[in-house]
Amino acid sequence: MQPQPTLTPIAEILATGEEIRTGALVDSNSAFIAEQLEHAGVKVVRLNGVGDDLNRLIAVLKEIGERADVSIVTGGLGPTEDDLSAQAAAEAAAVGLQTDPAALASIEDFFRRRNRPMNRSIHKQALLPAGSEVLFNPVGTAPGFQLRIGRCWFFFLPGVPFEMKRMLADHVLPRVADRLGVRRGIRRVKTLSCFGLTESLTGERLDGLGDQFPGVRLGLRARFPEIQVKLYGSGLDAVQVAEALDQAAAWVRERLGDLVFADNGEPMEAVVGRLLRERNATLAVAESCTGGLISHWLTEVAGSSNYFLLAAVTYANEAKTRVLGVAEETLAHGGAVHPDTAREMAVGVRRLAGATYGIATSGIAGPTGGCSEKPVGTVCIGLAAPDQALGYRFHLNFGRRSMNKQMFALKALDVLRRELLGLAHTP
Amino acid sequence: MQPQPTLTPIAEILATGEEIRTGALVDSNSAFIAEQLEHAGVKVVRLNGVGDDLNRLIAVLKEIGERADVSIVTGGLGPTEDDLSAQAAAEAAAVGLQTDPAALASIEDFFRRRNRPMNRSIHKQALLPAGSEVLFNPVGTAPGFQLRIGRCWFFFLPGVPFEMKRMLADHVLPRVADRLGVRRGIRRVKTLSCFGLTESLTGERLDGLGDQFPGVRLGLRARFPEIQVKLYGSGLDAVQVAEALDQAAAWVRERLGDLVFADNGEPMEAVVGRLLRERNATLAVAESCTGGLISHWLTEVAGSSNYFLLAAVTYANEAKTRVLGVAEETLAHGGAVHPDTAREMAVGVRRLAGATYGIATSGIAGPTGGCSEKPVGTVCIGLAAPDQALGYRFHLNFGRRSMNKQMFALKALDVLRRELLGLAHTP
Repeated sequence: MQPQPTLTPIAEILATGEEIRTGALVDSNSAFIAEQLEHAGVKVVRLNGVGDDLNRLIAVLKEIGERADVSIVTGGLGPTEDDLSAQAAAEAAAVGLQTDPAALASIEDFFRRRNRPMNRSIHKQALLPAGSEVLFNPVGTAPGFQLRIGRCWFFFLPGVPFEMKRMLADHVLPRVADRLGVRRGIRRVKTLSCFGLTESLTGERLDGLGDQFPGVRLGLRARFPEIQVKLYGSGLDAVQVAEALDQAAAWVRERLGDLVFADNGEPMEAVVGRLLRERNATLAVAESCTGGLISHWLTEVAGSSNYFLLAAVTYANEAKTRVLGVAEETLAHGGAVHPDTAREMAVGVRRLAGATYGIATSGIAGPTGGCSEKPVGTVCIGLAAPDQALGYRFHLNFGRRSMNKQMFALKALDVLRRELLGLAHTP
Repeated sequence: MQPQPTLTPIAEILATGEEIRTGALVDSNSAFIAEQLEHAGVKVVRLNGVGDDLNRLIAVLKEIGERADVSIVTGGLGPTEDDLSAQAAAEAAAVGLQTDPAALASIEDFFRRRNRPMNRSIHKQALLPAGSEVLFNPVGTAPGFQLRIGRCWFFFLPGVPFEMKRMLADHVLPRVADRLGVRRGIRRVKTLSCFGLTESLTGERLDGLGDQFPGVRLGLRARFPEIQVKLYGSGLDAVQVAEALDQAAAWVRERLGDLVFADNGEPMEAVVGRLLRERNATLAVAESCTGGLISHWLTEVAGSSNYFLLAAVTYANEAKTRVLGVAEETLAHGGAVHPDTAREMAVGVRRLAGATYGIATSGIAGPTGGCSEKPVGTVCIGLAAPDQALGYRFHLNFGRRSMNKQMFALKALDVLRRELLGLAHTP
């Protein structure tokens, strides 16, 4: 791979697979790759998607080979008959296919280390176009490869997002940086995660950032239910870029205040986990409407067993009284969805687990179960701390059950975060 | 717009805009349109995405004009300078731009009815290529238009998803059905969901399906941890297509047996929920390593409160004894990750909730916590039924904590499914 004459190399992305062509799957890989390439100083000019059709694959590879300097292709590297990327690449480059011994060894190693039987069709994955360079896949069986077709360097990666992301970072971006001679300018990104405003309201509050900080570009990204404020800095000097980003981040914090919960991309459950650890505190959770989602999020964080003791998903009212000790009068008086019930759930689960803190949710995620007094989207959140127990009521309806569950769960964790940091509990 | 000579018209989709090109936005419009067109009997062969670059827009419109019968373009219809779709379309079709009086009237009407001031740049939206037919936008200001370029009928729609969807339904699909004379060819898809084999082993077992059933094409889709076997049927007669798909599905079931858990796309938690409802049975779950994920999945199904009573996420050993009544000797003897512990957890949560069935998980999701005797990936699953209580041990390592959690959770639900259906419990 030799340096290209163009100052800014241009790239195209190709997503392959029947699920892409037919729309059965929304192609999020291409957007991810485009963002990374743009960030690395490569200009992405076109996205392409085709199905598992050999002739169309060959045609589009040849086209891209005439138009672009670099191209990332996802999908079609698997062991089955409809995985056609290697074959199409070989035909587009007018070379043969041959078994790559290093690729075969790495596949065999992958299976050996996991004690899994290796079936014959797996060998197909080591069959690569002659002249290609294998790209090892540290997290899956299908290796990728790099091959020149026409004027363009192609990188073929798996379609599984986490494999693709790992290989893009490990193999593609360093090669693009080294050999295409980009990244001479400095590019950095800073992410501030916030919760509590819509994307458009967040954008309004940050209006004017570009005028204030000329080297910094603002991007908003909804990672429901959180909003990520992305600050893209560029310039020729690393120190200046870092300073501009820090200043812009401080400006954003001034405008968003304690709605910002992380400045390093950490999700809320990791932030809360860190705060608990720092305080040698433990947590127990009682979930009704969130159905285990808070617990699932908390346990996605490695090491969470150090502070997370117990969750009780008490979907039935009887479980609320029997397991958590919610008073029958409380349920009879206010119903399951009531700040008093949520508070008693939090107190009950805290006591049951012997934890420092307890949080609880009870609400109506929908689609049914709402009424005029308590419409879908109503959620009550309980908090039990060593010195106090509180119950809140919010209305947060996003129209879909699974979105409401996520919003309720993040709200409950944010209530705990505010308690741990001594912040005001916004209503 | 005249009927095309092809039996199945072929389509391409083009998404435009800088946010598409740079990956700032994941293009979900194209997948939506592809699905709708495929369903209407049009074969989508290619997706395209370009930025707001006039020359590239013209080039890609001309290319599509040579390749496709019909094309849907999204974005670029707004009032600002970087909205270039009409201009690019006019140049690709070699016609001029002219103000469309009907489009102008509809834009003015839109503003009048909402009492919004109309600025001059809005008029640009009524400037359409000569010879195009305006497509009214009932939910926004930018009208779309229809225009022939080369051999292809293009429909230009806004990029805002809900405007695009409304106009696709109102204007595009009826015209495609009427004028392209489609729906004569029949296309159907059948999805068999299975669990227990890798994608490649599934593919091997289904080798030869295409030879056996010429009108049916096989596609495999990994929706980790399940594998979806997709059967795509096509032909001229609806009854024949349905029969061929049914026969192919039966053939697949013969080869995959009870690894198939759904033939309608239902996820495992919905299948288990239906089986519980049919038996008037209820469920309680005790989760350790799965951390609430089983419960989260179960409660994603609307109506799950009818059968799902309680989950106890007992991450700490003390919670296992205190809440679930696991004997201290059991924990001392086998440890937390042991079939006996999992069985006692299942028995305990079943009793605590007063449920018909209890299931439990205890294992090592990683990245740490493994040892040579119980490596990362070890999971013990407990099942408590009215007549028996069982404990199993499996080893299922997929290298990442979150994947292991998913695999363990699906395995536990599959153990319950097998119990409910009276199937053998595979080791």
